[in-house]
Amino acid sequence: MSATDAYPSSGGAGDLDPDYVAGAVDLLGVLAYSELTTYQSLAVHAFSAPDLASRVALCRYAAADFDHVRRLEGRLAELGSTLEDAMAPFTTVIDDLNRRTRAETWLEGLVKASVADGIIVDFYREMARLVDPRTREVVEQVVADDGKRAYLISVVRESITPGSPEASRLSLWGRRLVGEALTQAQQVAADREAMGMLLVGTPERPGADLGEIGAILRRVTERHTDRMTRMGLTA
Amino acid sequence: MSATDAYPSSGGAGDLDPDYVAGAVDLLGVLAYSELTTYQSLAVHAFSAPDLASRVALCRYAAADFDHVRRLEGRLAELGSTLEDAMAPFTTVIDDLNRRTRAETWLEGLVKASVADGIIVDFYREMARLVDPRTREVVEQVVADDGKRAYLISVVRESITPGSPEASRLSLWGRRLVGEALTQAQQVAADREAMGMLLVGTPERPGADLGEIGAILRRVTERHTDRMTRMGLTA
Repeated sequence: MSATDAYPSSGGAGDLDPDYVAGAVDLLGVLAYSELTTYQSLAVHAFSAPDLASRVALCRYAAADFDHVRRLEGRLAELGSTLEDAMAPFTTVIDDLNRRTRAETWLEGLVKASVADGIIVDFYREMARLVDPRTREVVEQVVADDGKRAYLISVVRESITPGSPEASRLSLWGRRLVGEALTQAQQVAADREAMGMLLVGTPERPGADLGEIGAILRRVTERHTDRMTRMGLTA
Repeated sequence: MSATDAYPSSGGAGDLDPDYVAGAVDLLGVLAYSELTTYQSLAVHAFSAPDLASRVALCRYAAADFDHVRRLEGRLAELGSTLEDAMAPFTTVIDDLNRRTRAETWLEGLVKASVADGIIVDFYREMARLVDPRTREVVEQVVADDGKRAYLISVVRESITPGSPEASRLSLWGRRLVGEALTQAQQVAADREAMGMLLVGTPERPGADLGEIGAILRRVTERHTDRMTRMGLTA
């Protein structure tokens, strides 16, 4: 039996088990707060752009992140929640991460937007396989690559010389970010019982077993390594 | 003969006088750069919000400003220009204004978003009456009140005590902003011949006469005074 057989097709909150709904609302909420924060951070960071074209490009991707917030809000409403209520449990952990990893330069900001967001998005894309079809569809639309990551990667790659001191410094920065992002994802799963239950499942709704959780972390790490390599950095 | 009779109805660049097109591109460009800057500034300012609901509200209005940029870009494309080319002539004057008027507190930022943007929007709404119907329609959609100004006004009004030292300080701030915004609008009109020609017109395409320009400035000032009063401030 696949995880999706456990959900009635209409997908409104009334058809779904309340414990399950709490987990799905958590997933949408943490993703919404991540997207909201990325949106604001990119819009700020765009002020540091070296030229108008890069500034407009970054603003455009930032605005797309807010489009994601709107889409998540739509599904939250169907599940009987609001954006603010769903995001509230996650503000502290995500704000803490951002305080600890403040980008000081234009390139640090781009690497952060690629690496940290990449990890988070990859992680929640994996979790989307464990939720009802309608929630999954919304999450998959939100995490779909809209060109932003490819753009960020190409700008970083074109701006640095492989093997240069700056490349080493940005590689270290990338390693720090991945550590912080994985810590955040684990902390969120541990803090929020309903979301943890999504991951491990229930008798009626199978989740991911230990082997699968290992496979998820492996895939997330591989995608991160690939992104770093494409930027000309060492993972 | 009204100003709009002078334009063919299809409204593509090929149907229009090149000098006129240059003026319309300027109008769309200055508005686009104003909206881009407001979008970024509001998204930054939302980090200072006292609570999550205010933060989300401000982010939502900021994102709507980027929707405006997208709409202006659509019309610029029809007129054979790009966002970057159309905005480029206005970055210095608008960036200078923003450097001179950096908000230090949450309320200063809200007053600025209401007062400075309000003036600019009112001014370009008046200019929209002098352009071809299709450009006018886009400008009017962009400057239409989407609830942002009413929201900002109500937050400021509820946060201050009329007659308090803070109200006096914010009133002064508002007066400084209106001076800066009017200076900017005049400087833009003087610097950009094509845009100046929009305002004063040509034999084929009547613009605004001196009496009308006076009336425009009067209306813009009246709307500003009204906004200040509604915030509980003195214009």
